[in-house]
Amino acid sequence: MNPIEGHLPIRSPLHDILAPTGIAVIGASSDPTKRGYKAMVGLIKDGFRGDIYPVNPKADMILGVKAWPSIAEIPGNPELALICTPAASVPGLISECGRRGIKGAVILASGFAEMDAEGAALESEMMARAKAHGVRIIGPNTSGVFNLHHRLNLLALDNVRPGDVGIISQSGNMLLSLALEAQYNGQVGFSTYVGPGNQSDIGFNDYLRYLGEDEHTRVATLYVEGFRDGRNFLDVAREVTAMKPVVVYKSGSTAAGQKAASSHTGALAGSYAMTVDLLKQSGVSVVQHSDEILPVAEGLGLLQKARGKRVAVISDGGGQATIASDRLSEAGLELAELSEQTRQKLREVLFPQASTVNPVDVAGSTDANPSLLATCMEIVAADDNVDSVFLVGMFGGYSIRFAESLLGDEMRGAEAMVDLSKATGKPLVVYSLYTPIKPPALRRLHEAGLPIYASIEHAVRVLSALGERGQYLAQVERQSRERSVTPLPELSAMFQRAQREGRDLFEYEAKQLLRDHGIEVPLELVVRNEAELAEAAQRFGETPLAMKVVSKDILHKSDAGGVKLNVVGEAAMREARQAILASCLAYDAGAEIEGVLVTPMAKKGVEVILGVIRDPIFGPVLMFGLGGIFVEILEDVAFRSIPLSRHDAEDMVEQIKARKILAGVRGEKAVDKSALVDLLLKVSRIADAYPELSELDLNPVIVNSDGYAVVDARVIVDREHVATKESVA
Amino acid sequence: MNPIEGHLPIRSPLHDILAPTGIAVIGASSDPTKRGYKAMVGLIKDGFRGDIYPVNPKADMILGVKAWPSIAEIPGNPELALICTPAASVPGLISECGRRGIKGAVILASGFAEMDAEGAALESEMMARAKAHGVRIIGPNTSGVFNLHHRLNLLALDNVRPGDVGIISQSGNMLLSLALEAQYNGQVGFSTYVGPGNQSDIGFNDYLRYLGEDEHTRVATLYVEGFRDGRNFLDVAREVTAMKPVVVYKSGSTAAGQKAASSHTGALAGSYAMTVDLLKQSGVSVVQHSDEILPVAEGLGLLQKARGKRVAVISDGGGQATIASDRLSEAGLELAELSEQTRQKLREVLFPQASTVNPVDVAGSTDANPSLLATCMEIVAADDNVDSVFLVGMFGGYSIRFAESLLGDEMRGAEAMVDLSKATGKPLVVYSLYTPIKPPALRRLHEAGLPIYASIEHAVRVLSALGERGQYLAQVERQSRERSVTPLPELSAMFQRAQREGRDLFEYEAKQLLRDHGIEVPLELVVRNEAELAEAAQRFGETPLAMKVVSKDILHKSDAGGVKLNVVGEAAMREARQAILASCLAYDAGAEIEGVLVTPMAKKGVEVILGVIRDPIFGPVLMFGLGGIFVEILEDVAFRSIPLSRHDAEDMVEQIKARKILAGVRGEKAVDKSALVDLLLKVSRIADAYPELSELDLNPVIVNSDGYAVVDARVIVDREHVATKESVA
Repeated sequence: MNPIEGHLPIRSPLHDILAPTGIAVIGASSDPTKRGYKAMVGLIKDGFRGDIYPVNPKADMILGVKAWPSIAEIPGNPELALICTPAASVPGLISECGRRGIKGAVILASGFAEMDAEGAALESEMMARAKAHGVRIIGPNTSGVFNLHHRLNLLALDNVRPGDVGIISQSGNMLLSLALEAQYNGQVGFSTYVGPGNQSDIGFNDYLRYLGEDEHTRVATLYVEGFRDGRNFLDVAREVTAMKPVVVYKSGSTAAGQKAASSHTGALAGSYAMTVDLLKQSGVSVVQHSDEILPVAEGLGLLQKARGKRVAVISDGGGQATIASDRLSEAGLELAELSEQTRQKLREVLFPQASTVNPVDVAGSTDANPSLLATCMEIVAADDNVDSVFLVGMFGGYSIRFAESLLGDEMRGAEAMVDLSKATGKPLVVYSLYTPIKPPALRRLHEAGLPIYASIEHAVRVLSALGERGQYLAQVERQSRERSVTPLPELSAMFQRAQREGRDLFEYEAKQLLRDHGIEVPLELVVRNEAELAEAAQRFGETPLAMKVVSKDILHKSDAGGVKLNVVGEAAMREARQAILASCLAYDAGAEIEGVLVTPMAKKGVEVILGVIRDPIFGPVLMFGLGGIFVEILEDVAFRSIPLSRHDAEDMVEQIKARKILAGVRGEKAVDKSALVDLLLKVSRIADAYPELSELDLNPVIVNSDGYAVVDARVIVDREHVATKESVA
Repeated sequence: MNPIEGHLPIRSPLHDILAPTGIAVIGASSDPTKRGYKAMVGLIKDGFRGDIYPVNPKADMILGVKAWPSIAEIPGNPELALICTPAASVPGLISECGRRGIKGAVILASGFAEMDAEGAALESEMMARAKAHGVRIIGPNTSGVFNLHHRLNLLALDNVRPGDVGIISQSGNMLLSLALEAQYNGQVGFSTYVGPGNQSDIGFNDYLRYLGEDEHTRVATLYVEGFRDGRNFLDVAREVTAMKPVVVYKSGSTAAGQKAASSHTGALAGSYAMTVDLLKQSGVSVVQHSDEILPVAEGLGLLQKARGKRVAVISDGGGQATIASDRLSEAGLELAELSEQTRQKLREVLFPQASTVNPVDVAGSTDANPSLLATCMEIVAADDNVDSVFLVGMFGGYSIRFAESLLGDEMRGAEAMVDLSKATGKPLVVYSLYTPIKPPALRRLHEAGLPIYASIEHAVRVLSALGERGQYLAQVERQSRERSVTPLPELSAMFQRAQREGRDLFEYEAKQLLRDHGIEVPLELVVRNEAELAEAAQRFGETPLAMKVVSKDILHKSDAGGVKLNVVGEAAMREARQAILASCLAYDAGAEIEGVLVTPMAKKGVEVILGVIRDPIFGPVLMFGLGGIFVEILEDVAFRSIPLSRHDAEDMVEQIKARKILAGVRGEKAVDKSALVDLLLKVSRIADAYPELSELDLNPVIVNSDGYAVVDARVIVDREHVATKESVA
């Protein structure tokens, strides 16, 4: 399957439910304070094209529509029921829906599992009946749904226009807020909205899959408080982002927020930093502020992607060119370096005092001639070094600020920008300080599908999302995720032994696991007698060695005099061994001493940490960071879902703030990044191959310009997991 | 002078210039494309109360106002001239203005010093004439000025309303952008605007002082690309912030932005991080994003300050309560811990499923009863643990979303909030998702001076600024900046000796400087012979010592075998000395060896760095950070203008991200912060007392739970500065 062109294998059942030819409104009402009234108003006002069947035993007509006393008596064949009645009535109604052939029900009532044990029992009862009758459930406890392209507006929101932004939101207020924002700025329209509610049947991931398939949705936008099956979500997201942008705002970025979220939805929030890393790994565009959701969704919906992160700025005000440069730089975007040819062309059309270095500052050249801005945009868009074009300043307002007579020229400029946007494959993003008052030239740009922003900050977030998406798609096309290795029978047996004995792997076993899968682990020999010492001396030659006592009775080896460093040659080794034995026995006369471990001294380098965890939400995850304070104090770590692609591994190494240290500081050579990337990939493959491996911790690994040395390895064994034929096949 | 109640000693001449009884518009025009037309329109449309004298030799009337052929022929006594003519004409016109008794001139033309050498000469000529005739200059190359409370609108901006936000902006586009934003959201009004332009006479700092004095300005708002006399700016800012909030947006936060700014204004940008620290030290509210300028200015103008950073959130939607919690936490604010009494009162009015833990989630309790939100606000505002109240959700929209019949109750709620805002000293900040469409209840709140936001992010920035300002004012009231010490004659002589010899201080001199001002520096003795060694052994007793060769010929002491560590007792010292001498002479037979330096081994602890620099813009500045990668790679440092207050010093230690390390990690004890604060204050005093000290670098200082040890000290001497009587007095 080509992930860009392809379609998801299973068509979501939501297509039928959310585009019904008829709808039963159970609990429809003429009382304006009732939800059953609101929904009727929404359907009627928006001109729902199918049949509406209000169900209410106490009314003949509701808002001019004939009402029916029960579901059984409805004459047509509605696919969807909206249930507005209280929780207790729901299980019975679901059975009735099922008997009437209704395929899906939207259940607004709360008072189910989110409430108490009694509610949970009611929810189970409801689900049992839904399954028995083949009725799919949206909710319960949902804020509702709409599908504006089918004029199905069960929320009765005023003034929402059909468009291409699909929304799934775990907060009804958030949907409302986005709808009001869209109404206010008048640019964005919506396709489908779903409030997942308790997700007792159809869940978050199913809704995302549906938005991925929905032809009216060009961008899927999600407000998430907590994931349930995060691992599956990442899989679905990967499929959907290959086809269209997915924008996620995840709340609970702080401990305070997570506490608030868990009291709201009861969802387990998990580490925010990890969640963000994993979402990005699946191609999701993550926004960090709630007021960026709609601008970013709009921009991605209209422009989809940029080839890269090199932005050309055209500005008619030096101050705002500076602000734009600051924000671009902070967002990890680059100011494109314009070619000499481009600069020459700009010089030909601009005043001498203009700056033709990016950010281009026209310095008054356009005051009497605003369409010249379009010419400048065309010139920079033609430059191979430019991935996207950012117009900053007062375009649209020249005829207001300077002279009305400029309106004609300004409209010509707008027309030229529209032509340019069609001709060039590069995104054009416009910030104008006149955006709030929507002058004609900006209205023209907007009609033609160019996004116009009232905030430099928001425009830059859009440019950043476009660049990230373009780069993501490029690397996804280039490579697939690295395949897992086949588990080795003797290592699977080793895990089983540990499981039987109710213990984790011994360090030497952990190191064996690594070694057998191609990870270089320094040789370690346990010397038990003079003969073994002679043999070890033979093998290590003149290599400086570390020697450590091996005894289950001696925990603090150094305190017991059980460690000798920088030992070279057989004579010194013998002396060191005797000293260690003597000292340890003096320290604890009863200690059972197995022998002395001999291994080469670790080379100097940078300490890094690799860890594998099985996250309860997201499954197996690899963590990488620098050792010591970087992980513990600065929390400067990167996470990726296992298995990693090569790009993922490379990206992890570049992501951490301490990457400068890996690149070499204070005259140190850069570490061998390709060896490090190779190590990350091998660890990922091992974790993928052995489901019995619950956690893995390489801490520290010393990396330097020659490669790496795994100093310590720890593997926690999943005592529950019993390897199946499949997992050892 | 009480800094809160007091007034600035000198009244700014700008009061007369910016509130003139008459204005001459030189170069007034009937051509709508000319600036001399725009200005006339602005004055007439806004109803300027004084006399308008268009000056244009070619016209009798301009826009219905009698024109005058020259300045000399004007009949009245205008205080102000607006000069709209090209640069070359300006010097002559200034003389004419002066002869006519005009006190100030606003000069729009560019083509002066910002252009080229010829322009610079023209500017000098203009200034010579201005000084000769006592005419004060705004500009040249200014975007203009307005003083809306005097209906003096020389920019001819439409739809700007008089209000209490004063603005100084180094970008005309930025002013325009703020004016359009204010027009759009319809809440904010302006007092005075000035574009400082080339600042050839009146400068940035004078304008700030004027806004500080101006009775119509409740908050001064500045867009700054670069400071000139930054030290003086900080002084003026300190005086003004004691009276009213000062909001600064400083562009050039990144290298890319600084490059763009310098090509725009030619201003030297300086370190952004340092600038932000110094501005905050002077009580300035720094905003980081351009779209936060107006929201923060508005909020500070209306609400001025909060007692602290403990915020109570009242929300009608769990999702947005979560977002608010995230943003508050990220901004360094706290979710106030509500007292049991407060929670009990909330429980009495809310549904059982409501959460009375902050963030308070009313969970549907207000759906049919929105005025209950005001009741909740009143309950939490009465809690001593609460410094400000943040209402989050759909207030104002209940009558739109639920039922029109709720409008009456919603208006009662708004009225109750207005009453509460008057009764409580605590700021009430409202985010409503209905803000964009301005429903009646929100309009009522706004009329009463409560700021209403359309973005949780902006509302939180306002809460943060209110809390910071409240805490700043509290500490300013408590303490003044620490006074400088008196220079000691022998140390001044030491500096003079170094100056004469054209060198910096020797390390031992630098340490002497520190010691003589009460900083503990470990004892160091240079041992030149056996007798001195015996004497040193006597003094150090059983203290473990470090011994190092002292020789100008041996740079790499360790390589030469010139260092011995952990030496204890006279015999070992003697042996170490002999070994050092032998080894060094073997290393370089010709080396001239002065002796061997003996000092106690540095204790274990955390390495920190203290530095003093004389910044070209901001003058003497103290820098503090952790050693090694923290300064070099992570740039995790704090800056304060010298002299520091005790609060400044304490604040520096708390500001760095690595503060956790000072608090003790991995079982280490916390370092002695009071000793560290004491060290910072002493270094500040020394730098203040000795202007000959150009730079000071204590790197590293080892701090631990027992105190600190200055390991290395370096002092760079200002070779230009000659100590005056004053500076040594």
